[in-house]
Amino acid sequence: VTERSGIVTLLTDFGLADTYAGVMKGVLLSQAPSLRVVDLTHSVSPQAVEQGAFLLEGAWRYFPPGTVHIAVVDPGVGSGRRRLALSTLGHFFVGPDNGLLSAAIPEWSRPVRQPGAPYVARAVTPDPDLTAVSIESRGWSPFISATFEGRDVFAPAAARLAAGGRLEELGPAAGELLALPAFRAPLLGDELDGLVVHVDAFGNLITDIRGSDLPPRASVLAGGQRLSVVRTYAEASGLAAIVGSSGFLEVALPGGSAAAALGAGRGARVTVVP
Amino acid sequence: VTERSGIVTLLTDFGLADTYAGVMKGVLLSQAPSLRVVDLTHSVSPQAVEQGAFLLEGAWRYFPPGTVHIAVVDPGVGSGRRRLALSTLGHFFVGPDNGLLSAAIPEWSRPVRQPGAPYVARAVTPDPDLTAVSIESRGWSPFISATFEGRDVFAPAAARLAAGGRLEELGPAAGELLALPAFRAPLLGDELDGLVVHVDAFGNLITDIRGSDLPPRASVLAGGQRLSVVRTYAEASGLAAIVGSSGFLEVALPGGSAAAALGAGRGARVTVVP
Amino acid sequence: VTERSGIVTLLTDFGLADTYAGVMKGVLLSQAPSLRVVDLTHSVSPQAVEQGAFLLEGAWRYFPPGTVHIAVVDPGVGSGRRRLALSTLGHFFVGPDNGLLSAAIPEWSRPVRQPGAPYVARAVTPDPDLTAVSIESRGWSPFISATFEGRDVFAPAAARLAAGGRLEELGPAAGELLALPAFRAPLLGDELDGLVVHVDAFGNLITDIRGSDLPPRASVLAGGQRLSVVRTYAEASGLAAIVGSSGFLEVALPGGSAAAALGAGRGARVTVVP
Repeated sequence: VTERSGIVTLLTDFGLADTYAGVMKGVLLSQAPSLRVVDLTHSVSPQAVEQGAFLLEGAWRYFPPGTVHIAVVDPGVGSGRRRLALSTLGHFFVGPDNGLLSAAIPEWSRPVRQPGAPYVARAVTPDPDLTAVSIESRGWSPFISATFEGRDVFAPAAARLAAGGRLEELGPAAGELLALPAFRAPLLGDELDGLVVHVDAFGNLITDIRGSDLPPRASVLAGGQRLSVVRTYAEASGLAAIVGSSGFLEVALPGGSAAAALGAGRGARVTVVP
Repeated sequence: VTERSGIVTLLTDFGLADTYAGVMKGVLLSQAPSLRVVDLTHSVSPQAVEQGAFLLEGAWRYFPPGTVHIAVVDPGVGSGRRRLALSTLGHFFVGPDNGLLSAAIPEWSRPVRQPGAPYVARAVTPDPDLTAVSIESRGWSPFISATFEGRDVFAPAAARLAAGGRLEELGPAAGELLALPAFRAPLLGDELDGLVVHVDAFGNLITDIRGSDLPPRASVLAGGQRLSVVRTYAEASGLAAIVGSSGFLEVALPGGSAAAALGAGRGARVTVVP
Repeated sequence: VTERSGIVTLLTDFGLADTYAGVMKGVLLSQAPSLRVVDLTHSVSPQAVEQGAFLLEGAWRYFPPGTVHIAVVDPGVGSGRRRLALSTLGHFFVGPDNGLLSAAIPEWSRPVRQPGAPYVARAVTPDPDLTAVSIESRGWSPFISATFEGRDVFAPAAARLAAGGRLEELGPAAGELLALPAFRAPLLGDELDGLVVHVDAFGNLITDIRGSDLPPRASVLAGGQRLSVVRTYAEASGLAAIVGSSGFLEVALPGGSAAAALGAGRGARVTVVP
């Protein structure tokens, strides 16, 4: 049994111009008044499931065990797609069954991305260490809208878990789940075939190339330019590649925006050559 | 007597590039250290009182009774306009007397919007169920700037209420208040004459047309296009109208931005024809 | 000995599209579960140290004594620049040694800006009332990345201070510190030679000209226009100058954006003539 930390995190594509996130906090605090709610981000690109999954994967481990992570990036809201609650390593995850919660799924049971292919979710059989249920409404939400399950399903479910409720109270075992490929650029010949999966506020292009996969003295090809790998932003005199704080290779332009300089964004290809 | 929830919400047009909201939290926590402060949004369009009122109206009911809602969208700051504190249905509201707090005023005592007209506040006599006072400084704020009453008036007043203070401690009964028309598109012949009152982060155009007012098999005219009404985003193949999570009709483009596709924004007309 | 307020504030240039601030909150709450974390802003312009210092200076006094303020605007991350923890007037400050924490340094020991010159940090000898240490990692962070010291150094250090730890536990006395000039427009002849140091969400141009330095019946020159000084936004019929809520002169356009109208931004010159 995992003690609860009393913390709920939120990661969505709702933006900040609306009260959607605030309303979810109202629902959470109405049900569990002593919770603390932490925004991971509400600025995932609209409906960019793979970007949301990448950001969640880099963030959840910094919270104490017993934390509940709600993630909502959900192009399929109102369709037949299921709503999941998962538990692994003492953390809880709540969100749609579309690959967004892949961070909770052990890497070895997730698909592998093929060279040149984007991140697409596929059904996998969950690992026995992962407890997964399909959330089914059981009277604890008075009304379920067709468009805002963050408020009507995910927040109430998370409040129950955060208050000590068990996953099994929320619904039956989920069986197969949709999972995204593990974030790891594949080899194509002797090159690492990377993709930009996120662009941060500085305009750094964050790729799926793991620092630990980099060969010694590698160069990086991005936007038609050959870049070298530096250890800190301070070492770079112009566009450069660097292993960032979450362990992935980024293309950065100190004092400027690499995204603007290269005209590149999410989905752009970045290659590592030995 | 209403128990306090210990929660204060904030809704402003201050944006997030500044420390204005953070400073208000400092004032709140200095006076009432155990409060929890929840941001509804700080991205109301600058000085768009009717948009702020619409967003507050859709959000406050999701918080527990005893919550204090501070709203500041205030083109008249520093002029003679009054500062209000209201209480209704166990919730408290603090902000300028310009229609922004209309959510606290029962609909039947608010004006009715005329076809083709925008949302303009008018003086109304408050309902006896609504307690309303005009906040007058009484030494509990050391200094009142001419430009930042959120910090100098509304936050201190809200902190007192949230800590259990009574409305009557803040000032005398308010008498007449400014109220916006109820958000409800009027009939023009057999058509509903709607206005876009908000655009969300997905580019959905949110109108003042209530789902409950829609005739069966209605069509929607927006930006020169005739749209049908669908039940979920997943059912729409292109631009479509849908009753959103707050019960109002929205024009949406799944996977895109209806606002960009139609070149429309706040104030645009959207009509429902039977 | 200062009691701790249990509050930690954050001011960064990380933006909101990322989980960087959320991850710092995870680290803080993992180490000190009862903390309350308040965002001052994460929208300082990328690497604009002087803007961050100005915003921090206007905000920290509104929090109760015993609050820990983390500030991270850090072009030099990963270089040899030191990490500071300071204490003054019962408040604690944690961040890079690049002038960002100048708010904690008494004004009389900070440099003076010369007419026409920008804000550039210089080394100063700290005042005896200011306790300052250079943070050195001592095993309380499992891993220090070269790029995200907010997570790996500043958040853990702040959590220790907020939980009652002493500055001296974090490292040795800092000696000389980098400090920005006090924010105060200098005289050039009989004119005050001001700079825009911040633009807020309304497009107000906030200068380093102190309201208390204004001569009677002054006019203000900005973007080639001569403006008069008004007392409230409501008094202005067009572009005007006003002493804002933090005591500095702002150029404002009620109902519009002065920044857009004048094509001016941070670094623009604004002059006061008697």
